[in-house]
Amino acid sequence: MEFDFGMVGLGVMGRNLLLNIADHGFSVMGLDLDPQKAAALEAEADAGKNVKGTTSIEEFVQSLQKPRALMLLVPAGKAVDAAIASLVPYLEPGDIVIDGGNSYFPDTNRRIVELEDKNIHFFGMGISGGEKGARFGPSMMPGGNREAYERLRPIFEAVAAKVDGEPCVAYLGNGSAGNYVKMVHNGIEYGIMQLIAETYDLMKRGLGYSDDELQRTFEEWNGSEVHSFLIEITSQILKKTDETTGQRLVNLISDRARQKGTGKWTSQNAMDLQVPLPTVDIAVTMRDMSAYKEERVQAAQSLAGTSANGSEAAGEWHVLENQLRNAFYFAMLVTYAQGLVQLRVASATYNYDLQLEEVAKIWRGGCIIRATCLEDIRKAYSSNPQLPNLLLDPTIGQELVNRQEDLRNVVKMAIDRGIPVPGLMTSLAYFDAYRSETLPTNLIQAQRDYFGAHTYERIDQEGIFHTQWD
Amino acid sequence: MEFDFGMVGLGVMGRNLLLNIADHGFSVMGLDLDPQKAAALEAEADAGKNVKGTTSIEEFVQSLQKPRALMLLVPAGKAVDAAIASLVPYLEPGDIVIDGGNSYFPDTNRRIVELEDKNIHFFGMGISGGEKGARFGPSMMPGGNREAYERLRPIFEAVAAKVDGEPCVAYLGNGSAGNYVKMVHNGIEYGIMQLIAETYDLMKRGLGYSDDELQRTFEEWNGSEVHSFLIEITSQILKKTDETTGQRLVNLISDRARQKGTGKWTSQNAMDLQVPLPTVDIAVTMRDMSAYKEERVQAAQSLAGTSANGSEAAGEWHVLENQLRNAFYFAMLVTYAQGLVQLRVASATYNYDLQLEEVAKIWRGGCIIRATCLEDIRKAYSSNPQLPNLLLDPTIGQELVNRQEDLRNVVKMAIDRGIPVPGLMTSLAYFDAYRSETLPTNLIQAQRDYFGAHTYERIDQEGIFHTQWD
Repeated sequence: MEFDFGMVGLGVMGRNLLLNIADHGFSVMGLDLDPQKAAALEAEADAGKNVKGTTSIEEFVQSLQKPRALMLLVPAGKAVDAAIASLVPYLEPGDIVIDGGNSYFPDTNRRIVELEDKNIHFFGMGISGGEKGARFGPSMMPGGNREAYERLRPIFEAVAAKVDGEPCVAYLGNGSAGNYVKMVHNGIEYGIMQLIAETYDLMKRGLGYSDDELQRTFEEWNGSEVHSFLIEITSQILKKTDETTGQRLVNLISDRARQKGTGKWTSQNAMDLQVPLPTVDIAVTMRDMSAYKEERVQAAQSLAGTSANGSEAAGEWHVLENQLRNAFYFAMLVTYAQGLVQLRVASATYNYDLQLEEVAKIWRGGCIIRATCLEDIRKAYSSNPQLPNLLLDPTIGQELVNRQEDLRNVVKMAIDRGIPVPGLMTSLAYFDAYRSETLPTNLIQAQRDYFGAHTYERIDQEGIFHTQWD
Repeated sequence: MEFDFGMVGLGVMGRNLLLNIADHGFSVMGLDLDPQKAAALEAEADAGKNVKGTTSIEEFVQSLQKPRALMLLVPAGKAVDAAIASLVPYLEPGDIVIDGGNSYFPDTNRRIVELEDKNIHFFGMGISGGEKGARFGPSMMPGGNREAYERLRPIFEAVAAKVDGEPCVAYLGNGSAGNYVKMVHNGIEYGIMQLIAETYDLMKRGLGYSDDELQRTFEEWNGSEVHSFLIEITSQILKKTDETTGQRLVNLISDRARQKGTGKWTSQNAMDLQVPLPTVDIAVTMRDMSAYKEERVQAAQSLAGTSANGSEAAGEWHVLENQLRNAFYFAMLVTYAQGLVQLRVASATYNYDLQLEEVAKIWRGGCIIRATCLEDIRKAYSSNPQLPNLLLDPTIGQELVNRQEDLRNVVKMAIDRGIPVPGLMTSLAYFDAYRSETLPTNLIQAQRDYFGAHTYERIDQEGIFHTQWD
């Protein structure tokens, strides 16, 4: 028989996604050079599903229905190029190769060009939702040739997560649009994770919350407007007891955070595009800061001063919790706003022709940054597809205006307690800078002209000016 | 006759530096394909100096004493490669080519390798001080072959700025060490300029200072511990009256700030090295933010709320000014600290073998970030060349500890007035995070393990762990 869809790389993500596709009635074939993985695929498949594993590249390709649709789920980087090179001799014009990993978007652009000569369509597709999402419904962000996407659409729409019956997948744009959107998704993920960590730190170190109080708070929050996957798993994490010690597991985890680079790429590229992305930037920075453990231990001794004081505010916890939740929600919305501006500018720069309403729509389910507020965000772009910034949407703008005092209070409270909350801080500064008709950057322009003759523009006259200042 | 030193590119920087070299008794030759610039060089030279300009590459190279020492001062990028290509046919083994522009350091590494085959030494040298510095004493940051540097040393030491009789130039290291140090110099420059702009904004919009009060304050500050080139020129800028309108010129300058990219490179590379550089990052970001002028004008109308209120604090100005100055000084020190950590990590990563005491020493004079505090910074690295972070130096640490309350108060005041001070904020957060023995990044590790099976480390056991959280 000929199989509807092929998967190269049968690690847990590839295997789970393929089993998900099979569950929806498609016949699938998996390729892995490791015979155990190829066998594991078939063993895990439910009875009656058309699932086959192989270690033979030739058999794999020959068994796929033409035009072939096959996906790579191998580590980003050289492994993708190696997989493509091994497949190409067997592929034919019209076939479609989808890279489902977190590839760096310029790599995708290069691969598209390399395969164009052979009339092979190359897609970069971000997939979010982790192992479980892959198995039961991820959010999928494909980019590539629009016509070729029709071959993939029925499969992807069947397996994607659903929100109100609508699949969390859509054709996003040409070239590396899919990888780019997934990269920014991950940047926003970094930002929100940092904001949750700060809020947790403020409650724990700053206000002296017990483990139970921390857990209860995040569980309660998940029933509010901040309802989201990341808040939900936070409350589950805070509940988890370590089997060997009986302690809360989270308290036993090292505070050196790791990263795989997508947050960094997002920040670096935002700087190339001159898009302000301060909350994501600081999230990347704080992961970097966390690695300086020995120095922090030393500095904790030598740099005395303001420090956490949990007791004094104990009586006002209910008020404080509302303030904290409002502060977090404010900063979360600002983080989405920053990322969506980046997508708007990237779309214009790289000719992706992104529809931001579609992006918000497919992020509502399946992915790591899914959150109730994404429906408000979708509506904002539905009302105005050209919206320059979510802060200018009347509804979102009002949500921020209503919560700004709470965020101001929370940041001041953190400052008084010596708790670092740079994610909350930069979200507030972003808001205050964005609503500043005039910024003090006129002085910076004057300084640049003073020391480097870099010239400046004036507000009262057209032209370029230079002054002999001294 | 044979000339001691040659300059390619007789724009204002190249011409001024060459005239500076001639003033110190060296015979110099300048090359520019524009005959007017070649002639202008000779016209500007004082009588009795050995200064010659030419438009002929061959004449230029043939007239230089061997081994030749010649510098390029042409725009960074393709112009440097083009200049090298046009010179190479005339050069001989042992000759030295110095790139004096703000070249991106990987380009310098590539050029060194390209010229190694021909036994031509290529130097990347950062030069700071602007036009005036070039003419009367810049800070110079050369990197390249250590032995070849001896040919350049007498010339560079003669023309560099002097502090306590010591020249603001030193051999920094091999490869692109010089360009790298200059890049980070510029990143610090971005940071300090942003901090000055925030302080100015807080006084102007937040506290309602008049133009005269602003000018007086920065002039007074320049007699304090924040004494520095950038504070000095700020007070001069604030004094300057526009000839046509009679108004203060700074108030007529557009608040869209421009940039040439070195700050961005510094931030992007810090992220690659996983070095926290939040104050420089936000300085780059705020220049980007300044460009969204039309949106800011619109948001100023739609996003109501907390706003500047100058009157209420008018009675406490003296106290406030001390707090502001201490806050600025704190953040300025933290900005140097961030940049010097980046140099330390870059030195280890790229094998530059930088001596940070030397770097601080040559930044004390001539360059844009020269400041009185650089002598304290130099001493810190003199006491401990392996110092991981300036915050761990007892003297600098105490300076920060003593000023932290003022910074906390100033940031809170800005928050209450809706003035964005993200540079001050991130400097404070950097301090508070660095002195946090435990950061909340344990939660981030748990989240990553929850949704992506990325594993985590524990504080009570060796090894790599993964948990089924739900």
